[in-house]
Amino acid sequence: MTKFTIDQLTAGQAASFTKTISEADVYMFAGITGDLNPAHVNEIAAKNSMFKGRIAHGMLGASLISTVFGMYMPGPGTIYMKQDLKFTAPVYFGDTITATCTVKDIITDKNRVTMECVVTNQDGVQVITGEAMVMPPKA
Amino acid sequence: MTKFTIDQLTAGQAASFTKTISEADVYMFAGITGDLNPAHVNEIAAKNSMFKGRIAHGMLGASLISTVFGMYMPGPGTIYMKQDLKFTAPVYFGDTITATCTVKDIITDKNRVTMECVVTNQDGVQVITGEAMVMPPKA
Amino acid sequence: MTKFTIDQLTAGQAASFTKTISEADVYMFAGITGDLNPAHVNEIAAKNSMFKGRIAHGMLGASLISTVFGMYMPGPGTIYMKQDLKFTAPVYFGDTITATCTVKDIITDKNRVTMECVVTNQDGVQVITGEAMVMPPKA
Amino acid sequence: MTKFTIDQLTAGQAASFTKTISEADVYMFAGITGDLNPAHVNEIAAKNSMFKGRIAHGMLGASLISTVFGMYMPGPGTIYMKQDLKFTAPVYFGDTITATCTVKDIITDKNRVTMECVVTNQDGVQVITGEAMVMPPKA
Repeated sequence: MTKFTIDQLTAGQAASFTKTISEADVYMFAGITGDLNPAHVNEIAAKNSMFKGRIAHGMLGASLISTVFGMYMPGPGTIYMKQDLKFTAPVYFGDTITATCTVKDIITDKNRVTMECVVTNQDGVQVITGEAMVMPPKA
Repeated sequence: MTKFTIDQLTAGQAASFTKTISEADVYMFAGITGDLNPAHVNEIAAKNSMFKGRIAHGMLGASLISTVFGMYMPGPGTIYMKQDLKFTAPVYFGDTITATCTVKDIITDKNRVTMECVVTNQDGVQVITGEAMVMPPKA
Repeated sequence: MTKFTIDQLTAGQAASFTKTISEADVYMFAGITGDLNPAHVNEIAAKNSMFKGRIAHGMLGASLISTVFGMYMPGPGTIYMKQDLKFTAPVYFGDTITATCTVKDIITDKNRVTMECVVTNQDGVQVITGEAMVMPPKA
Repeated sequence: MTKFTIDQLTAGQAASFTKTISEADVYMFAGITGDLNPAHVNEIAAKNSMFKGRIAHGMLGASLISTVFGMYMPGPGTIYMKQDLKFTAPVYFGDTITATCTVKDIITDKNRVTMECVVTNQDGVQVITGEAMVMPPKA
């Protein structure tokens, strides 16, 4: 696995992770978190809602941001400090979403980096936007 | 399932959800999100890290906040708009964590409510703090 | 989480829980229980059976009755004593089923309540019927 | 897989299935059914309950009875008609439980068989008892 210390990161540098969100993903996420909200697991209620069908948990999509940090950039050893999120559009079962994180500010003396985060679907629609602060691995 | 429209919510009103976080929870969460960071699934690497053992994903703990909104208060039909998170302490396998959400501001004309969110462990340590904005169900 | 002591329950009082049963639900249930009967996990054999396709385990549908007791009414602290079940129609993958439990007899001196239980699908067909005895939480 | 038609079954004939119930089994069962009752997933609350620790869902233990029918005797093609259950003792995480089903009455003209069912733990304690009616496979 690749990892980046703070000296190896540059503003504008980006990494991303893509996954097609399955019904099984959403159902297991519901089970782990206890969030069996009808919006996620009741197709009849969901069809009658403003979203017209079952949708993934917002936090499931947002968790792909964490995947980028922990797996790709900065990578293993990263410590997650802060995350701001706006949920701007629903993620449907079968949607292919991509979390992209881009280095914004590098605070070398405190070993902290801020990241612009966006999750988009297969049509380019932004479903989540936000900003994070992480501590890259020291070595 | 109980639900609260904006007229049924009052500043200071709170709801919570508690779960003991198991190794299985963390492993399934890793599988769903693709975040197989060694901090979560590599006991050898984790023992040598500053946390001295495998820890849960920050976003797993944070997702219990969503459970409170979708299942308890405001309950089914709630739309999740924003979430700010600070990860302030690690959650270890076997920790029993409680997400508590408390109504802060009620913006009746826009049907929006801000919530103070805190996740604590069995020792009362705050592991996550944050603020959310949600739209309660209309009926 | 809401809970009802025996003094807070009345004959005729009802609670329900609804879930769309996914293929993932049935497959995980098969894995946990070891019931990998072809009726549940072999589409070829199931198509040639009287049910014309894979069906959920009867006990999976029946387990939603337990969800009503443990989560909604009487709620956390309930002790499950007896359950009689008749499996009256199959549950197919994608069916949205609702378990409804209704208070029947209240035996206050023994802290026991009998409940009428029915699980219906999205077309109103009864798929499971039965009766249960539970001890509501004492406080 | 072996299967028994009604002519191949005899009163007193028995089959059983054994599994050690893991924390992961209970957690996944909670997720599938939506029954995240504190008795199953909150170690702090469970320690303070009459059971002194987290226990498996009664219906999880009971589901092993279905496993015997669907997998071993009468085997694939069996139709599950009725099940009566008494939950007589708790199943703890790590308990090794055995569901045993014994042929009781054989109603050949209706192709129905009643079965005595018992689930015991590693200490021989009966945790569930009951009776079932099934239709064995026709061929």
